[in-house]
Amino acid sequence: MNYFEELLAKQMPTEEERKKLAEISSAIQFKINALCKSENINASCIEVGSVSKNTNLKSSDIDMFITFDKTYPVDFIEKKGLEIGHSVLENGTEKYAEHPYVSGYVSGIKVDIVPAFRINAGERIVSTVDRTPLHTVYVNSNTDEKMIHDIRLLKVFLKRINVYGSEIAKSGFSGYLCELLIIHFKSFEEFIKYMASLRGKLIIPEGSDRKFTEPVIIIDPVDPSRNAGAAVSEENLSRLKLASKIYMTKRFDILEHAGENKPGRGTAIRIFTLRKPDIIDDIIYPQAIRLKNRLWDILEDNGFIPIASEISVNDNIEILIECKLEELPGVEIHKGPPVESGEAIKFIDVWNGNPRLMRGPYILNNRVYVDIKAKNRNMEEIIREELKNSDIGKNLNGYKDEIKIITETENMGFDVENRFYSRYLF
Amino acid sequence: MNYFEELLAKQMPTEEERKKLAEISSAIQFKINALCKSENINASCIEVGSVSKNTNLKSSDIDMFITFDKTYPVDFIEKKGLEIGHSVLENGTEKYAEHPYVSGYVSGIKVDIVPAFRINAGERIVSTVDRTPLHTVYVNSNTDEKMIHDIRLLKVFLKRINVYGSEIAKSGFSGYLCELLIIHFKSFEEFIKYMASLRGKLIIPEGSDRKFTEPVIIIDPVDPSRNAGAAVSEENLSRLKLASKIYMTKRFDILEHAGENKPGRGTAIRIFTLRKPDIIDDIIYPQAIRLKNRLWDILEDNGFIPIASEISVNDNIEILIECKLEELPGVEIHKGPPVESGEAIKFIDVWNGNPRLMRGPYILNNRVYVDIKAKNRNMEEIIREELKNSDIGKNLNGYKDEIKIITETENMGFDVENRFYSRYLF
Repeated sequence: MNYFEELLAKQMPTEEERKKLAEISSAIQFKINALCKSENINASCIEVGSVSKNTNLKSSDIDMFITFDKTYPVDFIEKKGLEIGHSVLENGTEKYAEHPYVSGYVSGIKVDIVPAFRINAGERIVSTVDRTPLHTVYVNSNTDEKMIHDIRLLKVFLKRINVYGSEIAKSGFSGYLCELLIIHFKSFEEFIKYMASLRGKLIIPEGSDRKFTEPVIIIDPVDPSRNAGAAVSEENLSRLKLASKIYMTKRFDILEHAGENKPGRGTAIRIFTLRKPDIIDDIIYPQAIRLKNRLWDILEDNGFIPIASEISVNDNIEILIECKLEELPGVEIHKGPPVESGEAIKFIDVWNGNPRLMRGPYILNNRVYVDIKAKNRNMEEIIREELKNSDIGKNLNGYKDEIKIITETENMGFDVENRFYSRYLF
Repeated sequence: MNYFEELLAKQMPTEEERKKLAEISSAIQFKINALCKSENINASCIEVGSVSKNTNLKSSDIDMFITFDKTYPVDFIEKKGLEIGHSVLENGTEKYAEHPYVSGYVSGIKVDIVPAFRINAGERIVSTVDRTPLHTVYVNSNTDEKMIHDIRLLKVFLKRINVYGSEIAKSGFSGYLCELLIIHFKSFEEFIKYMASLRGKLIIPEGSDRKFTEPVIIIDPVDPSRNAGAAVSEENLSRLKLASKIYMTKRFDILEHAGENKPGRGTAIRIFTLRKPDIIDDIIYPQAIRLKNRLWDILEDNGFIPIASEISVNDNIEILIECKLEELPGVEIHKGPPVESGEAIKFIDVWNGNPRLMRGPYILNNRVYVDIKAKNRNMEEIIREELKNSDIGKNLNGYKDEIKIITETENMGFDVENRFYSRYLF
C-alpha cells in the first residue's frame, strides 16, 4: 500500500461513525421537514457537504440546508432559518456567512443548519450558498465507488501538503474542488500525473482562462460563470505541482523532511504584533496581509532592503519582516532635475549652503545631484511616522497605535517566528 | 566687463609673448625648410595648433609639423622626422603619438616637432595627424577678429567650468572644437544662448547623428567622416548646458561656490590604490575606469550596494567606492528553479540536510528557495577572490596583487578622497 493510501486508511470514517452520521442526519432532516410542514412553509431540508456526497474523512461535520421557495423575502428565510436551527440544536450558537445560521452539536457531532433559496441548475442564485445543494446533486450523479475513494485520497494528499481548505488564510483547494478534479480526470493517478508535468496555470476545461485570471481556473459545472478554483494561490498550485512530482518519483522522503530552524541570520528582524479584532478570519486576514505589504513597502522605500517576511493570525496578528539594514546610512543620494530643465538652478539654490548638504551639488550623466544628511535613520520611528498616513484596512486602522514593534535578537517564541524559521516546502 | 571677459583679460597672451612666439616659429620654420632643401627632401614645415590660428591663450606651446610628400614610406618620415627634430631642438626628448616625435624647449617655450604626410582637403589621410594642417587652413580662412576673440573667450569659459581638453581623463572640448563652434554660431553669445536651451545631444550640422552615437556630434569640415566631438562625455555636455544657463541668468555666484566637504557619512567607504604603470594616461585611464567598474560590479553582485564612486589617476591610480553595507548579512536568499522544472527535486536534494542550509527549502510564487549561510561576508576577501578571474586591462592585469584596499574611517588625505568630498558642479 502506498504512502498516501496508508494515510487515507487512518483517516477513513469507521463503519460506526458512518452509521452515527447517517442516523443524526436523517433525524434532523425528519424534524426540520416536519416543522416546515406544520407551519405550512414551502421549504425542505437537504443535506450538503462531504457527508452527503460520501467523500468525508474522519470527524466530519454535518451540513444541513433548509431550502426555501424563492418567493420568500430574504429576511423571512433568515428569521425562520434561525428559529428552526435553534429548535433543532439545543445550545446552538448563531454564526454568520451570507445569512445568519445556527451551529451546534448533536451527540458530539458538529452540525450547521443554514437557510438558502431552492434553485434549479441554470437558475439565477440569490446568494452563493444557494448553489451548494446543486453541488451535492452534481457530485452524486457523476461519481462511482472508485472515484469516491480517489476523492478521499486526494483530500488526504492535499492535507498532507498543506494546501487543503479554501478559507483566505489557507488559499487552498476546497472539498468540492477535489470532487470536480477527480470527476474530470477520472482518477487520482491521472490527476497527479497531469499535475506533475503541468506548466503554468491549472485550467479546466481548457480555454476557460479567457474570463478568469487566477492561477487555478476550474469552471463550476453547476454555474459556468463561476471559477470554483478562484481561492487557490499561486504558491499552493506550486506546492501541488511539486508534490505531484514527488509522488510520481516516489520520493516520499522529501515530505518527511522538516525545514531547518536556525536563528542568528545576521540581519535586522522586526516583529510587529497587534491584537486581532473580534471579526472573522476571512475579513481580517486580507487586512493583515495588507498591513504586512504596507510595512514591507515602507521599509523598502526607506532603503532598509527587506528580504523576507512571515505572517501569523491567531489571537494576535503577528508579522515578521527581515531586512538587510539595521539602520540607514547617514547619507542619502538625492537625485535632482535634468540640467536641461528650468528646475536645475532652483535645485542648486535650495541646496547650496543648506545645513543638510553633505556633498555637491554635482552632475552625474544629465542630472544634478546632492548627497544629503539622512533625516531619520531609525527603523521604528520611520515606520510609526509613515503608518500615520497609511490605510491598513477598515478593521485595523483603529489599532495602529497599538502595534508593537519588537527587535528580534534571538528566537523569542512568537508563533510567527516558529512559522518563519521552520518554513518548509509544504 | 563681464565675468568671463575679465577672466579672458588675464589669460590673453601679451604683445611681448606674441612677438616671442612669432620669432621662434619663423626661426624654426626657416631652419627646417632649409634642412629639407639641402637634403633634397620633398617636405616643408608648417605651424599648426592654437598659435598658428591666433587663438592661443597665455603660455601656449608651439606645434610644428614637417609635412612629407605622400610617396615617402612611413618609416622614412618617422626616421627623418626625429632626425630633423633633434637637430632643431637641443636636448629634445622623443615622445610618441601616432608617429614618434621630438619635444623640447626654445627660450622657455615648449615646442613639438611632428612628422606627417602632406594631404589636400578631401584626400585620404594616412594617419589622423595628417589632418591637422588642414584644420589650421580651415580656421584661418573662416574667422575674423571678433570670432578669434570669441574663440579665446569660449576656451576661458570651458576651462573655468572644467570641460576643456580632449584627453580621455578629461573627455572635454578640444581647442579645435571651440573654433568650429564659434565659426558655426558666429559668436560666443549665440552659442551660449543655444546651449542654455538645448535639450539632448549637441549636433552640428543638424541631422548628422545618423552616423554617430556620441552625446556631442560635430562633423569635422575638413573630413565629414569624422566626429570632431567624439571625445566629449555626457557629463561634460551637461556641465556646459548648466553653465550656459548660469551665464544667461548672470548667476555667476553659483560658479564661485565650492562643494561641501563633510566626511562621516555612515557608509562603508573603501579606497583601492595601485601604482600607475609608466604608460601614457590616454591608455591607462580607460583601464583604471574599467577597474573601477569591475570593483563596482563585484560589490553590487555580492550585495554590498555601492552608491557612489570617484577616481584619481596621478602617480597612483586611486579608486574610491562607497557602499551601503560594511559587511554582508549572514544569510543569502538563494532562488532555485521553478517547481515545474526537472531541476526542482535535484535542488531540494542538494540543500536538504546541507550544513549551509539556514531555512527551507520553501516555495515562493512558482519557485523553490533556500536561505543559506553566506559563504564569505568580508568585503576585502570577496574582492580579492573575484579580481583573480577579472580582466582589468592589458596594462593593469599584472598589478592585481599590488592593489591595496583601505578601509576609510576618516579623511586620510588621498587625492581621490579630496576629489570625492569636494565634488561640485564644475
